[in-house]
Amino acid sequence: MAAEHQHFLTLDNINPNVQKIQHPARGPLLIIAVELEKELKNGVKKPFKEVIKPVVADFQAMGQPPITFVRQVMSIVIYPQLLDDPKFPDDAKERARTILNGCKGGSIGSYTEASGIEIIRRHVAEFIGKRDGIPSNWEDIILCAGDGIGKLLKLFSKEANGKKTGVMIPIPEYPLYSILSNEYDLHQVGYYLDESQNWRINTEELQQSIDEAKKVCIPKVLVIINPGNPTGQVLTRENIEEIIKFAYKENLYLLADEVYQNNIYLEDFKFHSFKKVMTEMGEPYNSMELASFMSCSKGYICECGCRGGFAEILNMCPEVKVVFNKSNTVMLCPPTAGQACVELLVRPPEKGEPSYEQFIKEKKAVLDSLREGAHLIVKTLNSFEGVSCNNIQGAMYAFPQIRFPQKAIEAAKKQHQSPDKLYAIEMLENAGICVVPADGLGQVSGTYHFRTTLIPIQKMKIMLDRLEAFHREFMDRYR
Amino acid sequence: MAAEHQHFLTLDNINPNVQKIQHPARGPLLIIAVELEKELKNGVKKPFKEVIKPVVADFQAMGQPPITFVRQVMSIVIYPQLLDDPKFPDDAKERARTILNGCKGGSIGSYTEASGIEIIRRHVAEFIGKRDGIPSNWEDIILCAGDGIGKLLKLFSKEANGKKTGVMIPIPEYPLYSILSNEYDLHQVGYYLDESQNWRINTEELQQSIDEAKKVCIPKVLVIINPGNPTGQVLTRENIEEIIKFAYKENLYLLADEVYQNNIYLEDFKFHSFKKVMTEMGEPYNSMELASFMSCSKGYICECGCRGGFAEILNMCPEVKVVFNKSNTVMLCPPTAGQACVELLVRPPEKGEPSYEQFIKEKKAVLDSLREGAHLIVKTLNSFEGVSCNNIQGAMYAFPQIRFPQKAIEAAKKQHQSPDKLYAIEMLENAGICVVPADGLGQVSGTYHFRTTLIPIQKMKIMLDRLEAFHREFMDRYR
Repeated sequence: MAAEHQHFLTLDNINPNVQKIQHPARGPLLIIAVELEKELKNGVKKPFKEVIKPVVADFQAMGQPPITFVRQVMSIVIYPQLLDDPKFPDDAKERARTILNGCKGGSIGSYTEASGIEIIRRHVAEFIGKRDGIPSNWEDIILCAGDGIGKLLKLFSKEANGKKTGVMIPIPEYPLYSILSNEYDLHQVGYYLDESQNWRINTEELQQSIDEAKKVCIPKVLVIINPGNPTGQVLTRENIEEIIKFAYKENLYLLADEVYQNNIYLEDFKFHSFKKVMTEMGEPYNSMELASFMSCSKGYICECGCRGGFAEILNMCPEVKVVFNKSNTVMLCPPTAGQACVELLVRPPEKGEPSYEQFIKEKKAVLDSLREGAHLIVKTLNSFEGVSCNNIQGAMYAFPQIRFPQKAIEAAKKQHQSPDKLYAIEMLENAGICVVPADGLGQVSGTYHFRTTLIPIQKMKIMLDRLEAFHREFMDRYR
Repeated sequence: MAAEHQHFLTLDNINPNVQKIQHPARGPLLIIAVELEKELKNGVKKPFKEVIKPVVADFQAMGQPPITFVRQVMSIVIYPQLLDDPKFPDDAKERARTILNGCKGGSIGSYTEASGIEIIRRHVAEFIGKRDGIPSNWEDIILCAGDGIGKLLKLFSKEANGKKTGVMIPIPEYPLYSILSNEYDLHQVGYYLDESQNWRINTEELQQSIDEAKKVCIPKVLVIINPGNPTGQVLTRENIEEIIKFAYKENLYLLADEVYQNNIYLEDFKFHSFKKVMTEMGEPYNSMELASFMSCSKGYICECGCRGGFAEILNMCPEVKVVFNKSNTVMLCPPTAGQACVELLVRPPEKGEPSYEQFIKEKKAVLDSLREGAHLIVKTLNSFEGVSCNNIQGAMYAFPQIRFPQKAIEAAKKQHQSPDKLYAIEMLENAGICVVPADGLGQVSGTYHFRTTLIPIQKMKIMLDRLEAFHREFMDRYR
């Protein structure tokens, strides 16, 4: 063993913005969960056989099979000899050829343009055009790899006139936004979603939040997640119009996280893109600056590992766009397998193509499993003593509120924990379910919540059985 | 068309660190090259039929076929039904099963740990152990996706005691380091490589550079690229020892960019990893902080598009490592196809396995093409009037020096250009070859160079014929 060396890089001198990073879904609970899994593997007896970890929306990790068509095309693209294999359908081969023709040297082994393969960007624009009934310009599209939001946020200068730049973020939050704001030295301005109105975005709250924030920063960005993570609301068109007017009035750059646009579970709800609403509102709103993000990790494709997604960057100042494109070349290009997946997200099999029937069946199976799970978890949670959970209109999360008995709140206080964290730790240790307590995600003071992701329906049923038993026992114990 | 909107995000208020980004290999020359390609496509007559763009080391973009084994395994991993296909060899299936077993839910569609799939990290450690004859700990390994160097550099605080943190970077440079330093608000400290000694790193120059730098910043990181990009030197063991002693004396964190470790073309040269040398030097050097980087984009695999690589992070302060690992979870995980490629980089077919013979043949073909190209381009350039080019000992670049006639220097001055840029623009327009003039990469004042990457040998011959004719004509014209 080498003698202990005086470290050059220590906690005392590392970048404080990096040091502050704390991902609530990757915190101490996950460490306990992994420990429990090790104990189970080593034969230690527990009241459960498997730890269920609905901490990150990742359907395939929970056993959901992938969409066959997606994997067929991606495998051909990687091993083009499969173009000669009669077991692969013609539409898969056509998609693969299209992608390969867009690659330098005809190979996905080469770097692409930093913004992604041109033909895929063109197809994304066509997809958006059909979705919204409004044309999209392919040069406004960039392909990305889980890094799109960071690429955009880092365009904003840290401060002006001695005040930091503010980024308005919904609370309860999806932690990526506060983590990136922190990393880029921007000031996080939280605005609360209205739980009593199924997590609607109230413009009065937006106004109050920005007025307060202006005392310490210059708010420049408004982040909207629709459908909501972790709150599952689907914004109405009217609500979106209000938000756009607010952003216009306050000179805010709109950042619309729309990655759950294919995850809507209630008949009466429909996804309205910010782009569509803003455009249809006409002047002066139709020329506002907007960045909208979409991903292959969610929806029904659920290919989290391939890191594929796209952004539509609207009405960016042309000179800024030059800088933006230049700054994106630093990382050379997004991974090609992820780019291929984007092609399949926007060009799935069409009616009449050989893969169509199977594709529709598989897509429906994923979405049915999600929908059934969404309904079941809401119904089940609302049947628990002291628990209320808004309808999951969309996205992939439940975010129930728990009214704890006074004794539980006191017990937590004694342990210097929040009650929701105490509850989550006991749930993990007693029921083998790892959720994210809301103390890391933000909640109205005096209310307590946790976040769980939707998981395939079979596993969901097992989880809810365990959760029900745990909750009853917990409430009895602290009554 | 919407009325012109007053933009919120403008050149006047964007992040100045992002605005400054300028990638010399993605600059105005590449824009001209793309324009020329469009003209050729539209039938405009030019003295060449195709623009050759050796600006980024990307062998597959230039027509080099991929390694069959690599693509077979990656396609099985993506479409595991291929495990039943008798056309795929058993060793490819074994690698694929190993990777899939390491994935959550047995699918590469799920997120992995932020540091990468554990079994692949273990195999990387075994690979390093065999390479160096010194054990490697798998927990020191992280898999990355072209973003590893940034992940490390951003750990360093921007400043202390009112002085910026300095990063020592070799000149002529590989632009990534200055771009990232700039993005993270670190101070770039250049040190010159010694052209007269085949781009050796002189510790006298390091000393002079750091002494000068200390007046304005606190140097904390020493970047070494070995084999060198763009200069192609392979450091001797004795030179590495000197560098390590210098870094120790000056309290520098060592960042060893060793992505070209498989690209060595001269018999007498051998790759020595910084880890190996540092460890063998014993105390106190063997416990120094070091980060070493490796990639699937270079070597003989040349899978640029999959974005796969790894880093070995040695002797990091344990508390800092906790922060480092936490900060890496923000991006969730590197793309799984790239991770799979790393497995194949460190576990190629072994003697006796069914894919071995073909693998060796293909590997040799790539490396022979690179070696032959390296020898040919050096020999050819050195035969040109006024040109001298150091031997390409390793990596994938030639970096020749040109002594321009006075008239060329004056012509450039009149156009407010550097002579090497004038030369490169004329080369592009007259010979259809797009290289990177060294004015963007740094060079000793009064000397002029350009950078070209190695390309497959057939294309290299075409390029050199065109280059020779262009150079003769250029020299004649400005004589």
